[in-house]
Amino acid sequence: MSFAELWESLLPIGRDPGTGGYRRFSWTAADAECRAWFIRAASERGLPVTPDKNGNLWAWWDTQATSPNAPPTSSAPPTSSAPPTSSANREILGYFGAGGAIAVGSHLDSVPDGGAFDGPLGVVSAFAAIDLLRERGFVPARPIVVAAFSEEEGARFGVACLGSRLLTGAMRPDAARELRDDSGITLAEAMAAAGHDPGLLGEDDELLSRLAVFVELHVEQGRALVDKDAAIGIAAGIWPHGRWRLDFTGKPDHAGTARLADRHDPMLPYAVAVLAARRVASDYGTRATFGKVLAEPGAANAVGSVVRAWLDARAPDEEALQRTVATIRSEVELVCAEHGVTFRLRRESVTPVVEFDAGLRDQMAAVLAARGIKAPVLPTQAGHDAGILAARLPTAMIFVRNPTGVSHAPDEHAESSDCEAGVAALAAILEDLASS
Amino acid sequence: MSFAELWESLLPIGRDPGTGGYRRFSWTAADAECRAWFIRAASERGLPVTPDKNGNLWAWWDTQATSPNAPPTSSAPPTSSAPPTSSANREILGYFGAGGAIAVGSHLDSVPDGGAFDGPLGVVSAFAAIDLLRERGFVPARPIVVAAFSEEEGARFGVACLGSRLLTGAMRPDAARELRDDSGITLAEAMAAAGHDPGLLGEDDELLSRLAVFVELHVEQGRALVDKDAAIGIAAGIWPHGRWRLDFTGKPDHAGTARLADRHDPMLPYAVAVLAARRVASDYGTRATFGKVLAEPGAANAVGSVVRAWLDARAPDEEALQRTVATIRSEVELVCAEHGVTFRLRRESVTPVVEFDAGLRDQMAAVLAARGIKAPVLPTQAGHDAGILAARLPTAMIFVRNPTGVSHAPDEHAESSDCEAGVAALAAILEDLASS
Repeated sequence: MSFAELWESLLPIGRDPGTGGYRRFSWTAADAECRAWFIRAASERGLPVTPDKNGNLWAWWDTQATSPNAPPTSSAPPTSSAPPTSSANREILGYFGAGGAIAVGSHLDSVPDGGAFDGPLGVVSAFAAIDLLRERGFVPARPIVVAAFSEEEGARFGVACLGSRLLTGAMRPDAARELRDDSGITLAEAMAAAGHDPGLLGEDDELLSRLAVFVELHVEQGRALVDKDAAIGIAAGIWPHGRWRLDFTGKPDHAGTARLADRHDPMLPYAVAVLAARRVASDYGTRATFGKVLAEPGAANAVGSVVRAWLDARAPDEEALQRTVATIRSEVELVCAEHGVTFRLRRESVTPVVEFDAGLRDQMAAVLAARGIKAPVLPTQAGHDAGILAARLPTAMIFVRNPTGVSHAPDEHAESSDCEAGVAALAAILEDLASS
Repeated sequence: MSFAELWESLLPIGRDPGTGGYRRFSWTAADAECRAWFIRAASERGLPVTPDKNGNLWAWWDTQATSPNAPPTSSAPPTSSAPPTSSANREILGYFGAGGAIAVGSHLDSVPDGGAFDGPLGVVSAFAAIDLLRERGFVPARPIVVAAFSEEEGARFGVACLGSRLLTGAMRPDAARELRDDSGITLAEAMAAAGHDPGLLGEDDELLSRLAVFVELHVEQGRALVDKDAAIGIAAGIWPHGRWRLDFTGKPDHAGTARLADRHDPMLPYAVAVLAARRVASDYGTRATFGKVLAEPGAANAVGSVVRAWLDARAPDEEALQRTVATIRSEVELVCAEHGVTFRLRRESVTPVVEFDAGLRDQMAAVLAARGIKAPVLPTQAGHDAGILAARLPTAMIFVRNPTGVSHAPDEHAESSDCEAGVAALAAILEDLASS
């Protein structure tokens, strides 16, 4: 099955016919279809799938595994076109231990009305890279495992990278089980309804001990590769970033009869927060965004009782991130006091700065350079499972050029030729990493 | 059945157990229960109910009607404690013709998380006033009819006083049928699903020709009666007011990777609109409120694509109302241009200034004064069906004191003794108006 066929087979799942965007939220019907697609793709390649305790999926190409679709591999010599990179330095550099699996993949869930590429491109490319390696007759000396992480976007339960946070112990299972979606359903209820035991949630050292490295391929969420005229790039690190929930509690009243001076309107300090976020981000060279707001009770002819809003903030370093949120907070607190509105700010998730493993990054750069593949090194402002996993094992990312630069929206795009370049690069890297 | 029993029987319908507020939206299950309650209350009093073409309910106490619960009225003399008011002036003053019915009532629907009194108090008081008149052995010389108007709040389909607007021809039936609720269901679909033919919608001159006047009793939505130390008041007029929908269309993007300068974030001009509304209302002595906002797609980690918001504006006169909206609009247009956000403002409903019928108001004031009932005359900023019907027949309103002044919220309240005073006043007025 070609990359294009595999890609096309995933494309209709969870797509909103109105917007053309995706609504693949965890533990919904669309999510179940994505999981079934993953199991089918793995099964067509003879890769057994094991869901982990946290709802992430793993498709294993074990060193003993047979492939129904690939040519017999025992007798075929490697046909890699580039000189084999020395992998002797690995143990010396110490960036991964002997025998562990090479994990590769991304996620299948989406933001509301998200694009087709954010997440799925990494999973499809992983399967396609395995196909390419098998066509070449490559026999891995270590297992290669394709991962699809659960709730990476946090679109349903509010915590980004939830699956990898639980796996690595960055999120407590008790707190996770109690997370609620917008209709009040807990993660525990949603998982149970989807047939997954929420009692299993939690850190999984056994699984982590079987992994040597994790490489995530992802569509670029900006235009740096366009500017650099390169189809692919390698990630340097991830800006520290987080999500804060702001609750403004006022007093519901009649929009006509309540005098302005008697009002406790929670919409007013919310509006101040939106404008403060933009100004502060501009002043500090950071990012601060309000994309989600819920007004209660939400009547056009009533002063609201509560406004709930979510602040997404990101910065080049952690001091700038904290300063961004603190400045917005103090400005909002002043206005809330003025209007008699109760204000509460809660941190929902924060991811510290991530510098991807330098040894692994250099190794990947060397592999690609040896094949003549241009792959500049870039920072990113977006969180990823590779960033969470970096706390427990060497991780790396490959970006694929996005001509629009747009992400988390239907315009998100990557040209087929660039996707193929991504698969070729990933295959080269897997071949190198799994060769001994 | 006492006022209290009648009131208690309505109280549980459509109440949200979490907030204690009401969610009686038109053509929903809660609305059907309210309608069933109305039919039961009427039937217990031997008042036949006729729904009109627009979904409003009418319970008729015809001059020939018998009452199963009241004592025989043919032999009992009127027991009214006040001297009968001369009604000879009516025809001379010309404020209503001979023989037409005295309509009385209000509505049963609510805003989201509304209070128990806004609407229902007028309907319950109308039935209770009839009970009081029958206990006294009053025999009406004209029909008295209790009305419950449909979708007064506009909470589901966005147009306030929809039932009375359709009845009087202030709203075109074609446009009404196409109104949609937040989940995209049209009024026509919702009515049909509730067993009401939407093809019947439209102006109803035959019904209007049978009505002489309409008197609406309503909980006060402010604290003027508290300040004046009076249990009830009479309405002078209604401020002109309306509802405008603002659509801000930007460009969805990633909250981390999209540079601030590249964004077209619709949340920013929305925030400017919220703050402008408050400032302009304060400057002009008007009211301007945003209580409802919907952000699409509503992801915490994405710059939004569209923000839809509703502006409620009210003013002492129409020039001030137009000036309020125009000033907000021009300020918002500037900011939208700056951010590359498309802006559209649409008028959803506007109700011109209403001065209630002076003859009817003076007559009511004389009736109450003759009985020693204090009833100051007050303006109001709230729209009512009595304001819409004023275009077609003499209308009037009685307000009942609200100790909190809060309305459109669970804290909305009226003391039992004030409610009883409202019923007594309404009975005195009906007795006077229906006596010849």
